[in-house]
Amino acid sequence: MAPDALELVFPRRNEKCTIYFSDQLISRVPLELFSGVSSVAIVSDDIVSKLYSKQLEERLSETAKTHMIVIRHGERNKNLTTVSSVANQMSDHGLDRKSALIALGGGVVGDLAGFVASIFKRGIKYFQFPTTLLAQVDSSIGGKCAVDTKWGKNQLGSFYQPEGIFIDESVLTSLPKKELINGLGEIMKSSIIADPTMFGELESLPAKYFEMQDLRKFVRRTCEIKASIVEKDETEINLRKTLNYGHTLGHAIESASRYRLSHGKSVILGMICEAWIAYELGILEKNDFERQTDLLLKTKNHFRITPRISKKEVLAFALLDKKNTSGVIQMSLPEKIGKMHAGKNELFTSLVSKDLVARSLEKLN
Amino acid sequence: MAPDALELVFPRRNEKCTIYFSDQLISRVPLELFSGVSSVAIVSDDIVSKLYSKQLEERLSETAKTHMIVIRHGERNKNLTTVSSVANQMSDHGLDRKSALIALGGGVVGDLAGFVASIFKRGIKYFQFPTTLLAQVDSSIGGKCAVDTKWGKNQLGSFYQPEGIFIDESVLTSLPKKELINGLGEIMKSSIIADPTMFGELESLPAKYFEMQDLRKFVRRTCEIKASIVEKDETEINLRKTLNYGHTLGHAIESASRYRLSHGKSVILGMICEAWIAYELGILEKNDFERQTDLLLKTKNHFRITPRISKKEVLAFALLDKKNTSGVIQMSLPEKIGKMHAGKNELFTSLVSKDLVARSLEKLN
Repeated sequence: MAPDALELVFPRRNEKCTIYFSDQLISRVPLELFSGVSSVAIVSDDIVSKLYSKQLEERLSETAKTHMIVIRHGERNKNLTTVSSVANQMSDHGLDRKSALIALGGGVVGDLAGFVASIFKRGIKYFQFPTTLLAQVDSSIGGKCAVDTKWGKNQLGSFYQPEGIFIDESVLTSLPKKELINGLGEIMKSSIIADPTMFGELESLPAKYFEMQDLRKFVRRTCEIKASIVEKDETEINLRKTLNYGHTLGHAIESASRYRLSHGKSVILGMICEAWIAYELGILEKNDFERQTDLLLKTKNHFRITPRISKKEVLAFALLDKKNTSGVIQMSLPEKIGKMHAGKNELFTSLVSKDLVARSLEKLN
Repeated sequence: MAPDALELVFPRRNEKCTIYFSDQLISRVPLELFSGVSSVAIVSDDIVSKLYSKQLEERLSETAKTHMIVIRHGERNKNLTTVSSVANQMSDHGLDRKSALIALGGGVVGDLAGFVASIFKRGIKYFQFPTTLLAQVDSSIGGKCAVDTKWGKNQLGSFYQPEGIFIDESVLTSLPKKELINGLGEIMKSSIIADPTMFGELESLPAKYFEMQDLRKFVRRTCEIKASIVEKDETEINLRKTLNYGHTLGHAIESASRYRLSHGKSVILGMICEAWIAYELGILEKNDFERQTDLLLKTKNHFRITPRISKKEVLAFALLDKKNTSGVIQMSLPEKIGKMHAGKNELFTSLVSKDLVARSLEKLN
């Protein structure tokens, strides 16, 4: 049975990418995608590879020589040194320009392995097999790949589309519950950006809705929203900026917490502050502001987020971003539930004063 | 006065690149190319920067903040460590996504700096300012950029087109005479690939024609030939392979000489052998084979190339190339002067037996 699929087209470089949705995809990846491919490298981390690499390896061995390359888990390994090590191993295994790569793991593996695929022999075919909720609904889609440097996250990278993305619910069952909120943050964000119906469904869930079986039904819709946005603006000139909702302050909060707060929690807190800013600026009307805040707070309480972070530091991190010069901070803000504010120039960017940002951080109390 | 210009269009990614030809371009680069660019990094090596960076820096300072980044000269520095160091310096200077980079130097600087430009903040605008004859007529054109790894040359890289290439005769005056043959090899190759008239002009030059003033007139035409080929086949699926004429065995000869033979000399020797192979296979007719050999040998004698290399090693290096499996070696061969052999499948690739290659190496005596 062919899995359910969604095809994306990227006109800029005339590239295509297909997202496959299916349970147990790990052991039934469509083999026709690898016709003419002599060797495949599966790049994964030391945690995920123990759980899933055998099934994927067995499946792919039906059509090509398959090689496992395992990196250490965690953001700190997302750097050029690991890139070099993965590429060396690919060469040792005899991979050439006609080989393919599959990134099997969360965001770190996806970002790093995608970047390796984009530069190995000047670029080979690759696929994303995300194994976290966050990677499934967010980082695996859109072709952004990169590594971190000592001067920041995702500073060296490329836009390089995978030929296929495999979304398999079955690999989420092993996910620790605390990982779910990372995906939940993006699911909520997507509903605010583009889907009032989904927002309503999230609102109507009981406060204890953080079970995988409850979130499952939002995965496909969230993927569709991201796909539709990145197709229209692959390199983030305008529309793709809306995906950063909650992230300007979210990233600053995450940094100020020294990464003790997860990405999902930080983004939820970021949206709480940014929604208030949108309301204060008269961009977002009161009723929609309150509905958003209620939904986001419900999550906040449930997860007992009690950030012990310095607001001064959050502000400093927000101002550190190269985009934000002269005490003005750029962000994408919602205009109502399901619609982001485009602004006169259609850039989906609002300029917010340092003072207003400082006041918004009071919402973190 | 606006410099003479040639515009290339790359339909694959909808990119454009303009080649500017002008004497003294180093101090009159068109400033309108940098409108909207806040900062420019000039990447050069420790030899070239002493000669030309000041002039270029002064010119660019009229329109943007300009920062010099100097790497050590030589192929051995074309690696990921240098990439990381250049990118770190760019970040220290505050360069962002709207900054630009200029590669000022020969092939090593061009390949490395182009690669940095392609991955810094996922890609910034960049320009090539080649300062060797070889880089002017060959490596600066076509968007191939890469670094070497311990397992080979140009193994990690990308296809990333510069927005502009600056071809300035005046920067060649400082070039050591032995550097000229590197460019001359590519000039001769271009005439055999695509320009019988230029071939005739090269033939009619006296044997002592290796002065810059004599080669000067071939620079523009050689750039045009390369430009026209890479425009039609950016990623080297078929036509671009013709640019590898003389390079399959040339690279093997260069490797077997442990890089004591220059690239230009090696390619000339490679063409001598490959022309003979084409003749033996009945692809190239006798008269054109003899004219080629005469022209190439004239150079050989002039430069007193007496390669002390093992033919066995040359063959071993040729077979090491991943493309060449089961004792068969792939190469692009000429059909007559000015035309390469496309073959039935239009791939511009002929399969040559190991034995025939071994016999062709007798021509090196």
